[in-house]
Amino acid sequence: MKIHEYEGFPNPARVRMALKEKGLLGQVEFVSVDVPAGEHKKPEFLAKNPSGAVPVLELDDGTMIAECSAITEYLDHFSGEPVLTGQTPQERASIHMMQRRAETGLLDAVATYFHHATPGLGPDIETYQCAEWGQHQRQRAQTGMKYLDGVLSAQPYLAGDTFTVADITAYAGLMFADAAQVAIPEDCTNLQDWRQRVSQRPSAS
Amino acid sequence: MKIHEYEGFPNPARVRMALKEKGLLGQVEFVSVDVPAGEHKKPEFLAKNPSGAVPVLELDDGTMIAECSAITEYLDHFSGEPVLTGQTPQERASIHMMQRRAETGLLDAVATYFHHATPGLGPDIETYQCAEWGQHQRQRAQTGMKYLDGVLSAQPYLAGDTFTVADITAYAGLMFADAAQVAIPEDCTNLQDWRQRVSQRPSAS
Repeated sequence: MKIHEYEGFPNPARVRMALKEKGLLGQVEFVSVDVPAGEHKKPEFLAKNPSGAVPVLELDDGTMIAECSAITEYLDHFSGEPVLTGQTPQERASIHMMQRRAETGLLDAVATYFHHATPGLGPDIETYQCAEWGQHQRQRAQTGMKYLDGVLSAQPYLAGDTFTVADITAYAGLMFADAAQVAIPEDCTNLQDWRQRVSQRPSAS
Repeated sequence: MKIHEYEGFPNPARVRMALKEKGLLGQVEFVSVDVPAGEHKKPEFLAKNPSGAVPVLELDDGTMIAECSAITEYLDHFSGEPVLTGQTPQERASIHMMQRRAETGLLDAVATYFHHATPGLGPDIETYQCAEWGQHQRQRAQTGMKYLDGVLSAQPYLAGDTFTVADITAYAGLMFADAAQVAIPEDCTNLQDWRQRVSQRPSAS
């Protein structure tokens, strides 16, 4: 299988972390898409993912899977027991819910701030910007950080006692927040401690 | 189990349709949340779902599961084989991807238009609005309809040959679009045909 991506960007980092957690890194061929040059908005790439975003997983039969959470579903069930997305119905539901909250409340909020209220990837790529909405999403991201901090006051990981895809999404969200200069509120000590712990996982390197 | 919801609204409709597809409707107690009166933004409900949105699934042990896609994960694995979210890794991934596209490109886009560029649920509930972004999302919803129409030109359902949670999400998205007066583009005949077929399922009544 192939992953079309741009290394170092937050969403590709989610899939790389999932690959490492599953021990699948060696089974994937990475294909670089020049996102800073806008290659992800060109027809050749849009044929792979009409949403115009990386990463995309290309299966051996040519099937294209976009959306990090969908790619992680595939990888987590590809071999061995699922370790990132849950096994029981209740685990599956709780992890899925927290993954969504980390995505909409943090990672996507930071992304919207970056693409709408900063120069983002530059005028050739950011062809429509709504700065007011972008600034609002910056606040939402920090509200999201406070929410996640509260969750982590009661349990070691976002969906409970074990590391899951919800943690991957939030970890990439904080990586994006760093890049976009959206600071973690100082009183979010649980979130900072969690980040420190996650950064020590082999999959975070 | 209980579902906290407001009957007739698009997101609660997604979960009711999933319950009917799974034959689980009789196993659920529905608890009405007065969304038009803003009950979903009050502290008592926010303790159940800090996102302030219905529906929420309450399990018998008190666990709260929010986010329609997470609730559907639970219901689809609660009894019997999964019929809405896929069984093989590839099915799971493709369905998950299409569910996300129907959600972000149609249902959520319509919702954002409704809450930001129309009076929405009224001034007491819509305490922040960004009309420019709302109008942009209206366009995005119609672009999303065209995308889904294209998918349906090649296959009977959004994720392939069988009805899945991706179809539920898109069907509720069109229900919301009707309510918000976002018309389906006239040339989207595949989408219209699909909607007609889905409307004839027992779960759509």
